[in-house]
Amino acid sequence: MNFCSHCGNSVHIAIPEGDNRPRHICDGCGTIHYQNPRIIAGCLPVYEDKVLLCRRAIEPRLGYWTLPAGFMENGESTEQAALRETYEEAFAEVKIESLYTVTSILHVNQVQMFYLARMDKPEYAISSESLEVELFSEDDIPWDELAFQTIRNALKLYFADRQTGLYPLRHISLDASDTQKFRTECHDSSAAD
Amino acid sequence: MNFCSHCGNSVHIAIPEGDNRPRHICDGCGTIHYQNPRIIAGCLPVYEDKVLLCRRAIEPRLGYWTLPAGFMENGESTEQAALRETYEEAFAEVKIESLYTVTSILHVNQVQMFYLARMDKPEYAISSESLEVELFSEDDIPWDELAFQTIRNALKLYFADRQTGLYPLRHISLDASDTQKFRTECHDSSAAD
Repeated sequence: MNFCSHCGNSVHIAIPEGDNRPRHICDGCGTIHYQNPRIIAGCLPVYEDKVLLCRRAIEPRLGYWTLPAGFMENGESTEQAALRETYEEAFAEVKIESLYTVTSILHVNQVQMFYLARMDKPEYAISSESLEVELFSEDDIPWDELAFQTIRNALKLYFADRQTGLYPLRHISLDASDTQKFRTECHDSSAAD
Repeated sequence: MNFCSHCGNSVHIAIPEGDNRPRHICDGCGTIHYQNPRIIAGCLPVYEDKVLLCRRAIEPRLGYWTLPAGFMENGESTEQAALRETYEEAFAEVKIESLYTVTSILHVNQVQMFYLARMDKPEYAISSESLEVELFSEDDIPWDELAFQTIRNALKLYFADRQTGLYPLRHISLDASDTQKFRTECHDSSAAD
């Protein structure tokens, strides 16, 4: 951030009075510009014994497989965001069953929230955001071609929990070293998320 | 938003190619400025049969009672944010037990996440953000002096769930009419949140 989005003057970084963190503060109007984590919401859609994955048509991680998910927009709920992204990326209509993973990704200032969701029919299609959309049984999951560690975590947890039929919410924190480790395990050394 | 925070040029509002929502786009460098909901994280701290509330020393809702909570910062997890806010506002050290409410507040673009938390000792103190900090039993909760509907919801759910000992996660959506109704019920007609 170099300029004030309110008045266009330059900004400097300082700790405002009564605060304890450096913020961008406008040299002209004094507006304090806070920067906060953003939410990514998505679904883990299940049809019978299979899960729905999308092969990304957009960067980052173009060509890798993901669960349908994306940035939550203003004016919607977390569940609406997850359902919207599932429809936009896979043209799949699902029913949310429970919040399953909440992952704080410290180095990119994201909170990813994945919901377990049920598909009543195997109806889906590719979209402008997905090169392929496909249902996968556990044995067929492309583990080495998953886009993000959050996707692998959710899938691993799901197939393990399916043994018991209980799907408790998990909180996970990831940092840059976790992302690097994931990329190495995927035999991929491209830029970080 | 009037100016690009990157290059200082003016911005216009348009739907970018491949998008389906209006965004602020820089007239100079073309940067698209996305705006997304922010997370407020907090705790519902429980000591024996009481819960810990703080009387707000800052606007909005100065003088009203709240659970300790605040904006999640970059570089921390949702749980770290909830614990930090509980310490900053009440000097209370708590142990998180479970995520209890996730409330999407549509008209102010917030997601409020409250965690049930245990206090092992009745140790707390006022801070620069709180005029008073106090443990309340159910009969003494100042229901008409609560700061926000999310606080009332969490407390009502907690005391109801305590009958069963089960505290399932709740997802709640609120809009402007809900906030107005809450304010009316509190006999307070000041500006909206």
